[in-house]
Amino acid sequence: MTKPPLGIADILATLRTRHPLVHNITNYVVMNSTANALLALGASPIMAHAVEEVEELVDISGALVINIGTLSKPWIEAMFKAGIHAKAKGVPVVLDPVGAGATRLRTETARELLQQVRPAILRGNASEILALGADAGGARGVDAQHTVAQAREAAVALAKKWAMTVAVTGAEDYVTDGRREARIRNGHPLMGRVTGTGCAASAVTGAFAAVAPDPFQAAVAALVVFGLAGEWAAQHAHYPGSYGIALLDGLDAVTPESVRDGARFEVSSEQ
Amino acid sequence: MTKPPLGIADILATLRTRHPLVHNITNYVVMNSTANALLALGASPIMAHAVEEVEELVDISGALVINIGTLSKPWIEAMFKAGIHAKAKGVPVVLDPVGAGATRLRTETARELLQQVRPAILRGNASEILALGADAGGARGVDAQHTVAQAREAAVALAKKWAMTVAVTGAEDYVTDGRREARIRNGHPLMGRVTGTGCAASAVTGAFAAVAPDPFQAAVAALVVFGLAGEWAAQHAHYPGSYGIALLDGLDAVTPESVRDGARFEVSSEQ
Amino acid sequence: MTKPPLGIADILATLRTRHPLVHNITNYVVMNSTANALLALGASPIMAHAVEEVEELVDISGALVINIGTLSKPWIEAMFKAGIHAKAKGVPVVLDPVGAGATRLRTETARELLQQVRPAILRGNASEILALGADAGGARGVDAQHTVAQAREAAVALAKKWAMTVAVTGAEDYVTDGRREARIRNGHPLMGRVTGTGCAASAVTGAFAAVAPDPFQAAVAALVVFGLAGEWAAQHAHYPGSYGIALLDGLDAVTPESVRDGARFEVSSEQ
Repeated sequence: MTKPPLGIADILATLRTRHPLVHNITNYVVMNSTANALLALGASPIMAHAVEEVEELVDISGALVINIGTLSKPWIEAMFKAGIHAKAKGVPVVLDPVGAGATRLRTETARELLQQVRPAILRGNASEILALGADAGGARGVDAQHTVAQAREAAVALAKKWAMTVAVTGAEDYVTDGRREARIRNGHPLMGRVTGTGCAASAVTGAFAAVAPDPFQAAVAALVVFGLAGEWAAQHAHYPGSYGIALLDGLDAVTPESVRDGARFEVSSEQ
Repeated sequence: MTKPPLGIADILATLRTRHPLVHNITNYVVMNSTANALLALGASPIMAHAVEEVEELVDISGALVINIGTLSKPWIEAMFKAGIHAKAKGVPVVLDPVGAGATRLRTETARELLQQVRPAILRGNASEILALGADAGGARGVDAQHTVAQAREAAVALAKKWAMTVAVTGAEDYVTDGRREARIRNGHPLMGRVTGTGCAASAVTGAFAAVAPDPFQAAVAALVVFGLAGEWAAQHAHYPGSYGIALLDGLDAVTPESVRDGARFEVSSEQ
Repeated sequence: MTKPPLGIADILATLRTRHPLVHNITNYVVMNSTANALLALGASPIMAHAVEEVEELVDISGALVINIGTLSKPWIEAMFKAGIHAKAKGVPVVLDPVGAGATRLRTETARELLQQVRPAILRGNASEILALGADAGGARGVDAQHTVAQAREAAVALAKKWAMTVAVTGAEDYVTDGRREARIRNGHPLMGRVTGTGCAASAVTGAFAAVAPDPFQAAVAALVVFGLAGEWAAQHAHYPGSYGIALLDGLDAVTPESVRDGARFEVSSEQ
């Protein structure tokens, strides 16, 4: 497996020096675990959703992460306001379309956010990417039933259509910007037994997007580091509750050195 | 103590095979821990409350859990919409009347949900069941002050009035469908030192209701398994923070075999 | 370092006997961890925000904690309603002005709460106290950039203006009621790597305010005990995820005896 010099270890070192502020408009289920994931990694989380203040917070943030996991009308308004402002100010936006394909509200909100906010990075599971990319019917939504391989075509199509990076996470992660593609093999099956690991991966992607100029590079770096944290955790915990805590510990324990030793991914130019 | 063949071990094995989707409209405090409890047990959680989508999510779920722990107007609307839809579609509903008796809003909302949604199972602590069953004054609500024994009469009355199963949890748990009754002695005092264990018990009850046709059987199975998880946790943690995490681990660690060995309950026909 | 007889060990013993109800109107991020902190300490948490019920809950509570961490309009209304009712009924109020200085919404809401609710205790980090006390520009808000020493003057001014106790937490904590001042050296740097430790400190302050007649004494006791819990945790965990859990364990593990042995603070009369 080739390891092109994406500089992931260096980006992690930069992140640990800069402690970028990451503004999250996310769902109720994962607010605490997401904030803790960012703190453990070395970033600074802001969790805020009031329409009256999201623009001010975007102004001081290095990235904005929009996660539609527990949608409702007032939050949707804040997501558009913050996202459009971030786009105008050059703050990179990561969109996590939780449950796209499972309900009309989620699928349509995610599609509108793609159109109006133009995120730098879209991160979802295979079912969500398929629902957004190809109107694939029958998606079960929050529960990933499709494989990452099945979502590859949809991911490339979405990346090209919206000129963004698309990250599909699963047993193996896949990242594309429509031109390059990466396959990442770090991670551990227990990550699927903890709620909000996908959401945390999106937030971590936001932290990397705040310090890496290339969104493709940021997404690959985030998923490698997150996967390494998951591997570290599996050495310290064997049941889902304690594994979720160890995963946070792992985000702190991963070092540029362990990235150099443990990163397992390959990058290729697709077209 | 007799152990009638309720088939709890078999139901747990079925649950672990089917991974039922459990839709939760629950309170902010426990969303994360409840989702993690369901995942650890082997079920698939959906946490969603928007009126625009709750019916679609009920359609793909095996059970609906309604928990009134942090009520507000828009959520109440979603609870009724989802609950009435679930009833019409034959999706079993579990109601957790958190804090009934403590405020008028909670007591009245819980009563209206009983009337309009007709849950398959009502799970509460003794004070909540007393408040709903007998307009007992002085209930302290979220803080269980009454004993399960004191709530027995109210539980039987509620079960008969609404043709449902009522589960009262405490040092000893009590379940009745108005005809049968069960006393469950699994569990551990440290469970009372962790927020949301009652809420998690309700969600776990939903997971069992999704795979067991008899709500009485589902409620007993859920409380036996949850209690065994609590006993497992007490062997691994001795302070409330780590105990809460070990309780999640225990939900994964409990097996059909440990149910056969460790279940401590008795069932009798009451009238 | 002198240890004036503030009676902190005795107050902790009282708290453990009375299990005071503490009503929290707090942010989504920390609801679970705050409730668990109060339970671990030996208090009884109520987390509720509906305008329809906050007054009833204040009536049965020993203290009210208002935390503006994830503000929005309906919650602001509930904060004022609960706070004004608490003031009228003599229930001590603790205000945590999360992010004051970071956005207008937060700064203005915190200022109005000071005016209309007149909290017994204001607890914030240095940036928040500076923003409220002196219209200091450039505050980064949720991320404490200023030192506690820099905020001392603002804390004294605020304490005198509103006849309240002000607690500024950081590497060293500072408490003043405008007349007396305390410096507290308990704690551990890992506390800053866990989300919601400041919010938990405010809630713990509420629990002490429910059992100690003197708000200054309550604030000092809370920060000593919370700091000792942090020191206990550092002996049991070395990464941020498991440290956050160990901090909860520590709140249970701290005893009146460990307070007598480990409290590190000094009190002086300032003016």
